[in-house]
Amino acid sequence: MDLSPSLVLERLQAVRAVLRQHGFAALVVLSSDPHLSEYLPERWQSRQWLSGFTGSAGSLVVTLEKAALFADSRYWVQAQAELGSGPVDLVKTATGEHTDHIDWLAQHTVSGERISIDAQVFGMAAAQRLQRRMLQHGVVIEGALDVVGLAWPERPALPSASIFEHDLAYACVSRAQKLAQVRAAMHQHGAGAHFISTLDDIAWLLNLRGADVDHNPVFLGHVLLTLDSCTLFVGSGKLTPALEAALQRDGVQLQDYALAHHAVSLCRRSPPKILLDPQRVTLGCYDAWAGQAEVVEAVNPSTLLKSRKTPEQAAHIRSAMRQDGAAMCEFYAWLEQALVSGESVSEITVDQHLSAARARRPGFMGLSFATIAGFNANGAMPHYRATPQSHAQIVGDGLLLIDSGGQYLGGTTDVTRVWPIGQVTEAQKRDYTLVLKGTLALSRARFPRGTPSPMLDALARAPLWQHGLDYGHGTGHGVGYFLNVHEGPQSISKALAQPQMAMQLGMVTSVEPGLYRPGQWGIRIENLVLNVVSTTSALDSHGEPQFLEFETLTLCPIDTRCIALDLLNREEIAWLNSYHVRVRAALGPLVSGAARDWLECRTEAIIGVDSIGL
Amino acid sequence: MDLSPSLVLERLQAVRAVLRQHGFAALVVLSSDPHLSEYLPERWQSRQWLSGFTGSAGSLVVTLEKAALFADSRYWVQAQAELGSGPVDLVKTATGEHTDHIDWLAQHTVSGERISIDAQVFGMAAAQRLQRRMLQHGVVIEGALDVVGLAWPERPALPSASIFEHDLAYACVSRAQKLAQVRAAMHQHGAGAHFISTLDDIAWLLNLRGADVDHNPVFLGHVLLTLDSCTLFVGSGKLTPALEAALQRDGVQLQDYALAHHAVSLCRRSPPKILLDPQRVTLGCYDAWAGQAEVVEAVNPSTLLKSRKTPEQAAHIRSAMRQDGAAMCEFYAWLEQALVSGESVSEITVDQHLSAARARRPGFMGLSFATIAGFNANGAMPHYRATPQSHAQIVGDGLLLIDSGGQYLGGTTDVTRVWPIGQVTEAQKRDYTLVLKGTLALSRARFPRGTPSPMLDALARAPLWQHGLDYGHGTGHGVGYFLNVHEGPQSISKALAQPQMAMQLGMVTSVEPGLYRPGQWGIRIENLVLNVVSTTSALDSHGEPQFLEFETLTLCPIDTRCIALDLLNREEIAWLNSYHVRVRAALGPLVSGAARDWLECRTEAIIGVDSIGL
Repeated sequence: MDLSPSLVLERLQAVRAVLRQHGFAALVVLSSDPHLSEYLPERWQSRQWLSGFTGSAGSLVVTLEKAALFADSRYWVQAQAELGSGPVDLVKTATGEHTDHIDWLAQHTVSGERISIDAQVFGMAAAQRLQRRMLQHGVVIEGALDVVGLAWPERPALPSASIFEHDLAYACVSRAQKLAQVRAAMHQHGAGAHFISTLDDIAWLLNLRGADVDHNPVFLGHVLLTLDSCTLFVGSGKLTPALEAALQRDGVQLQDYALAHHAVSLCRRSPPKILLDPQRVTLGCYDAWAGQAEVVEAVNPSTLLKSRKTPEQAAHIRSAMRQDGAAMCEFYAWLEQALVSGESVSEITVDQHLSAARARRPGFMGLSFATIAGFNANGAMPHYRATPQSHAQIVGDGLLLIDSGGQYLGGTTDVTRVWPIGQVTEAQKRDYTLVLKGTLALSRARFPRGTPSPMLDALARAPLWQHGLDYGHGTGHGVGYFLNVHEGPQSISKALAQPQMAMQLGMVTSVEPGLYRPGQWGIRIENLVLNVVSTTSALDSHGEPQFLEFETLTLCPIDTRCIALDLLNREEIAWLNSYHVRVRAALGPLVSGAARDWLECRTEAIIGVDSIGL
Repeated sequence: MDLSPSLVLERLQAVRAVLRQHGFAALVVLSSDPHLSEYLPERWQSRQWLSGFTGSAGSLVVTLEKAALFADSRYWVQAQAELGSGPVDLVKTATGEHTDHIDWLAQHTVSGERISIDAQVFGMAAAQRLQRRMLQHGVVIEGALDVVGLAWPERPALPSASIFEHDLAYACVSRAQKLAQVRAAMHQHGAGAHFISTLDDIAWLLNLRGADVDHNPVFLGHVLLTLDSCTLFVGSGKLTPALEAALQRDGVQLQDYALAHHAVSLCRRSPPKILLDPQRVTLGCYDAWAGQAEVVEAVNPSTLLKSRKTPEQAAHIRSAMRQDGAAMCEFYAWLEQALVSGESVSEITVDQHLSAARARRPGFMGLSFATIAGFNANGAMPHYRATPQSHAQIVGDGLLLIDSGGQYLGGTTDVTRVWPIGQVTEAQKRDYTLVLKGTLALSRARFPRGTPSPMLDALARAPLWQHGLDYGHGTGHGVGYFLNVHEGPQSISKALAQPQMAMQLGMVTSVEPGLYRPGQWGIRIENLVLNVVSTTSALDSHGEPQFLEFETLTLCPIDTRCIALDLLNREEIAWLNSYHVRVRAALGPLVSGAARDWLECRTEAIIGVDSIGL
C-alpha cells in the first residue's frame, strides 16, 4: 500500500472535517469489522485506509490535532517504515490486549468532550472498556456515526463470493444436530435467543463455507437463533436455490445481510433473554437489543463446540495431514535439488512451488494463510511476508524458515520448519535445538483434562528461559476444521487464563515455540496436535478421562542436521526418532521418486550422545 | 471442638430466631474477620461456633429451614467427621475461590427475600459477587446487622496481646521510608486517602509486631493513611508509652480500634479519592466511605512492597535459615536415634522435639504454623494435625511427612521433608522421586521478570502429570518476613493469573509439590526460594534484569534413601548433590556431635545411573 504522507494527511483532514461537523473531539478506529474477524475484507480496512499502516493488528486514534497508531512489537519495524515521518505517530504497546490507546485518549481529551466510534464494527467488550474508562474521565463515547464511511468516497463494496455446502461426509455432524447442540446450550443459559456474528461460528453451525475473506473459508453473515427458529442474514445471490432449499429444510430462514440488527431489535422471545458473547458481537448488536430484556453474557456455544473435533473429523484431519505432508515432501525434494543444481530460488519461488505442490493434492481448497518463507534475517520477523518488490534469494549460508498451511475439505493445516542452507553455525544449531526442545517438551506433555491452556505455555518456553531467551508470540493457537487457522477458545500463551480456555478432548492446537535474532535469523518449529486421552489416564467419578495428552497430527520431517546433539536428552531423541518412523510410514505410500528419496533421507534416526555413552 | 448435633441445632435455632425477628430469609457466614485474615481470633470463629466445622476455610449458609457448609477437597474428610449426621449439610466444592454457596442460595431463596451478611467481616469483593448475583435473582443483601453476635451470648472478647517494635536492625527499612513508599503509590493512583485493614500490611508498614493471632505475629488494627497523616486504630493498652511516642515521632496518631470506619466516613481529603483493595477491606469499610467520592480500587501498595524483600532482609533470611536448618539437624539426629533405640515416638512427640529444637535457636520467636507431622495415611491429609486424642505412633514401615516452620526476627521459615521409616516400597520410592523431580524442576527454573507466577505451576506438576498424577493444592505461596507464612501477591498455582501476581526481584515463595495416596501415604518436598537475577540475564532497555531465577533459601537435607535413581536425570542429580554440599557447608559450623554426624550422613552425594554408565 505505502500511502504518501500527503495522502494520509488529506484523508485525516477529511475525517476531521466530519468530526468537527458533528461536534466530536476524536475518533477511535480498531482493526475490526461487523464480525470481529481477524482478517478484514477491504471495505473495513478503515485503519489501513486512514493511516497507511498495513499490519493485521493495531488501533488508530485521531483527534482534531493529532493521530496515533498503537501497535505491538510484532509490527514496530513495519509500522515505523509505513508511517515514516508522516502525520500519524507510532505508539509502541505490549503484545496482547492493551489499553494504551485508552490512556492516550484520556490524556488528549478533556471532560465534556465527545468521542466517536462506529458501533457497527466496534466489539462489545472493547466498547465497554473504553466507555467505562472515559466515563470516569467525563468523556462520552458515541457509536451511531460511521465517520470513516462519510470521509471515504470510494470505499470498497462488500465481498460477494458464493457460498457452498461443507459436505456432510466431511462435516461429519449435520446442520440439524449442530443447531440442536447450540439450542441445548441456550436452554442451559436460560436464553430464548442467541445472536452470532463471528463468521467461523456461522460457517461451522450451518455446514456452509465461502470465500469472502482471504484464506478463511467463511462468508459474511449473521445468525439469529431462537429455540424454534434460525435466521441467516446474508447478501442476496450468494446461495444457489438448491442450497436455499436445503437450509429451509433444516429450518433456516434467509434474510438480507443488512437487516440483522433490525431483526434483533424486533426479537421478542420467551424466555426473554438473549445470549451474547461480548468478545464476539459488536456494540451495534447490543444497542439493537438494549432495553428489551436481559442479556446473558457467555462464550458462543458454537465456539466451544467447534473446538472439540469429533473422532470422525479427527480421522479426516489425519488424512489431510498425510496429503499435506506428501505435498511438502515433493516441494522439499524440489527445493534441495534446485539449490544443489544452482537454480535461482527466492522466497517468492518457495511460496509458488510449495503452494503448487499443495494444490495438486486431493481435497485441497486453498492456502490457510499467506506462506511465510523467510531466509536468515527475514526469518527473524515472525509475520514476514515476501513481496515481489522486497524478498531475498536463497543463496549462501543460513537458515530458511517456512511457515505454511492448506485448507482441505477434511481439515486445516499449519506447519513451520527451518532448514539449513549451506553451512550453519554452532550458534544457529544451539538456537535451533533449544526451540526444538520446547516443541518436544510441549508435544510430550500430559495434563489433567480441563487444565487452562495458558498454564502449559511455560513447558515450551522453559528450555529457552533456561538460557535467558524467549519469544514474543504465543506458543499455540486453536485451529479450525476446514475453517480459520486461528480459532479459540484455547490459547497456549502468556494470556491470562480464562475458564473457557480449558483443554478438552478433541481440540486441535498448534505447538510453535520460536526464537528470533533480529537482523540474523529466526527459528520456529510448529506442529498441530490433537487432545487425546492419555495412555496413563484413569477415569474420574463421571467416567471421563482425567488426563489428556497430545497426538502430533502434522506429518513432516524435522531437520536433524541443525541439531546440537549434546543438548538433547535420551527421551527427546527417542521421541524424535519415533516421530520420524511414523512420518516415513504415513507419507511413504503417497510419494515416489525424488520425493520418496527425500522423505527417507530426512527421516533417518539420529543417535544421541547418551546412546553412544551407554 | 466437636460440637454435639444438639448444640449445633440449638445455636442454629438461636440464629434463626434473630433472622425471623428482622425479616431475613437467610444468613451467609464466611470464614472471615474485619481484617480478612487467614487465621481468625476466637471472637470471629462464627462459622465454627455455628456449624461445629473447625477447618480453616469454608462457608456456611443458614436459611430458616436448612444449613449448608461449603468446603473444598482439603476438608472433606474432616468436615464429614465433624458435621456427622447433624443439622448442617456438607456441600463439596472445588478448591479455590468458589461460588457454590451463591448458587445454593439462589436455589433456596425466592425473589423479594432479604439475606443478612455482617458487613464488618464480609470482604468487599466477596460481597460484590454475592450482591450482583442475588440482585439478578431479585434478592436483597443487607450488611448492617451482626446476626451471629446477637445469638452468641458468650462470644470471646478481642485479643489483647501487647504490640512490640520490629527492630530496625531486622526490619531494615524504617517506618518513615515505608510510609513514604506507600504515599508515593497513593499519589500515582491519584488517591488522597488509603485505608488498610489487613494485619500483615499494617505490621509491615509500621514495623510493629504482635501476638493476636496464632503463628502470625500481627495485631488487630486498621490504618487510615492520607498524604500528610497516618492514624492507627488499635485497642487501648496494647502499646507502651515509649512505643506510642516513637510512632508519634513518625507522624502516626493513635485512635481506638472501634473508631476506624467512623474515621473513614469523616475523611475529606484532596484529591477526594480513597485507595481501597476490594480483596483486603470489608464491605463495612466501603459502606463507611460510600457516596463521599471516588474509590480507586487497587492492590494495597504495602502488599506489593512487602513481597519484595530488600538485599538486607534477604541476608537476615539466610541467617534465619541457617538457624532453622541447625535446629532440624538436632531434631532429626534425635529422631533417628530414638527410633533406632526403640524409644516411643509419636507424631505428637515429633512436634514437641522439633519445636523445642527451634526454640533453642537465637532469634526464634515462635512457630510460623502448627507443625504437620503425619505418618503414612496421616501424611496423605495435606492439612493434617495430630491431636492428643488422635495421632499415630511412628512404628513399623512407611513414610513420615513433617511440614514445619519458625518465626525469627530475621525471617519466616516453612519446610517439608519426607523420611523413610523402616522399609519403604518401590511404589513409595517412585512417588517420592516424582515429587522430588517437581521440586527440582521448579527450583532450577529461570523465567522472565514479570512472569505471572501461576504460569510456573505446570513446571512442578509436569513430572507427576507425565504419570497421570497430580495434587490438589497450590505449588507455592508467598512468605512474609517475620510475618505471615502465607502472603501475596504471588501464587504458583492453578489460580487464574492476575497482573499483580507477576514474579519480581526479592519475592520469597514456597516450592512444594506433593502427592497423596489417601489411606496410604503422602509426600511433599518443600523449600522456600528467593527471586534473584538470573546468571544468564541480560538487562532490558530500562537497565533492569530480564530474567530471574530461584535461590533456594531452605537449608535441610533432602532424603536420598527414598529416591528411585533411574527416574532422575543427570542435571537433577547434579542439583541435588550441589544443594547438599551447600547445606553441609552452611549448617556444619552450627551443629556438633550427633547432629553434625546426621548432617554429614544425610548430605552424602548420590551417584546416578547416568554417571555409572559414562
